[in-house]
Amino acid sequence: MQLGMVGLGRMGAGMSRRLAHGGVQVIGFDVSDQARAALDEPGTTVVDDLAAVVQALDPPRTVWIMLPAGPITVGTAHQIAALLDPGDLVVDGGNAYYRDSKALAADLAEQGLRYADVGVSGGVWGLREGFGLMVGGEDDVVAQLRPALEALAPTPDTGWVHCGAVGSGHFTKMVHNGIEYGLMQSYAEGLALMAKKDEYDLDLAAITEAWRYGTVIRSWLLDLLAGSLSRDAQLTDIEPVVADSGEGRWTVTEGIDLGVPLPVITSALNARFSSQGNAAYSDKLLAVLRNDFGGHAVQSHPDS
Amino acid sequence: MQLGMVGLGRMGAGMSRRLAHGGVQVIGFDVSDQARAALDEPGTTVVDDLAAVVQALDPPRTVWIMLPAGPITVGTAHQIAALLDPGDLVVDGGNAYYRDSKALAADLAEQGLRYADVGVSGGVWGLREGFGLMVGGEDDVVAQLRPALEALAPTPDTGWVHCGAVGSGHFTKMVHNGIEYGLMQSYAEGLALMAKKDEYDLDLAAITEAWRYGTVIRSWLLDLLAGSLSRDAQLTDIEPVVADSGEGRWTVTEGIDLGVPLPVITSALNARFSSQGNAAYSDKLLAVLRNDFGGHAVQSHPDS
Repeated sequence: MQLGMVGLGRMGAGMSRRLAHGGVQVIGFDVSDQARAALDEPGTTVVDDLAAVVQALDPPRTVWIMLPAGPITVGTAHQIAALLDPGDLVVDGGNAYYRDSKALAADLAEQGLRYADVGVSGGVWGLREGFGLMVGGEDDVVAQLRPALEALAPTPDTGWVHCGAVGSGHFTKMVHNGIEYGLMQSYAEGLALMAKKDEYDLDLAAITEAWRYGTVIRSWLLDLLAGSLSRDAQLTDIEPVVADSGEGRWTVTEGIDLGVPLPVITSALNARFSSQGNAAYSDKLLAVLRNDFGGHAVQSHPDS
Repeated sequence: MQLGMVGLGRMGAGMSRRLAHGGVQVIGFDVSDQARAALDEPGTTVVDDLAAVVQALDPPRTVWIMLPAGPITVGTAHQIAALLDPGDLVVDGGNAYYRDSKALAADLAEQGLRYADVGVSGGVWGLREGFGLMVGGEDDVVAQLRPALEALAPTPDTGWVHCGAVGSGHFTKMVHNGIEYGLMQSYAEGLALMAKKDEYDLDLAAITEAWRYGTVIRSWLLDLLAGSLSRDAQLTDIEPVVADSGEGRWTVTEGIDLGVPLPVITSALNARFSSQGNAAYSDKLLAVLRNDFGGHAVQSHPDS
């Protein structure tokens, strides 16, 4: 199998290497000179523009886009579409909103192009351990993609799933990430409680390491936490600010649309908003109100 | 090593078997004739009362209590204490509240008895996979217990940890279970959202099975969920009622005591309370208020 990989960042580069290891010939491109130069894997060929990607592939072509979701992905998809022939396949492996994926698929279909949305999990560890893949698209599209999916997954028959029609891959990945928000917050809260329990002076690195084996809460995220805490349990160099990339917001929005209560995932998302500083104004209001009605002291801002 | 095991229920029986496999001689007792008859493992000896447990052990004795937390455990501990000699060791492996464990340790110390609190995770799978163990107690107590801990754990040097002083084992197990509440609720919410997404007719058994490999959210709880969903994704025979056994309440109470925000663990606990029917009166109040101020329809109770 041949496959064009557009976007050779952390995810795209690791996936290109794993595809090449699995016998899939990869034609790679990235707008960054540095990213292009960094991909030196046997079985991959890096080219200088999108037209060269298309030229290097035999029809029906498969071009996998692995770029940040949103305008960059959509714009690139349309650029590629202009170069492709009817029957060629565009794959979006980014963390796109599934409604955008459906709209993009419809646009591409007007040009006779086929489309698949693939949610990809595994991050920087995927190269070694294999990626989790959630695929949306028609059966024949998935059949065409199958050698690539089998190469990317941990093993050919584990870790990838054809979820359903176009959009269902990104929908499933969205929910996967919403669940991830809740899981991460659960561990973080429990460990923060232990860190505050001065009575016991608990060794969080030793405890999380022990929890990895035999307990009900063992998981891959716990493996990562144990590693981080073993290096510095105080997390001295880390600011307590947690970004969010959209998947959590979309999951909570979907819960509202479908009327499904998501109290924990919503709480986890709100905790991230607070960490970003967006609870500060409401906290100021609460402080000043306590002062107004009860004369309770307020803390003055250090710059005032 | 010799060890008395008091309580041969699901946990105590599995632990006795694993201890015997690991070369620890177990003298077992349970008030239930059925539980006593069920433990037929080579290397274990079942006796008919607590006095016989104590008589079968050479001092300094180790008696491990594996009973429901609360009055049953505390009462049994005092019965055993009356039979033991100074220097003997009582271990509480149940899910006791760590403050109760500290009080029990103090009572036993007045009689010259030593004490360890061991949080045990792994449930019915522990016999095969090993138990996760969180130990609170003095160093010499842990040294005496070490052969048993090494036999119970997945391997001698993984899955068990000496957390600190008396109480710290059950404290750590309490937080472990609090985290478990959040993890379980996170998966449950995400899967409920997918189940409601009629547009895609998602196969939750196939998706959770795929998630087990390569994804960020892979875990032992997800392994269990994939198994349950593969048997019946509708969970037809299950009532939507989730019990809680105390650990979640104590975790949330500890957060209040220490002023540590636990929004997700608290939400998960509240979701269980709602599932138990305890949101029904507030839901009735909301329905009747909407009727009162806006004339919105209410649903009549079927028995009215």
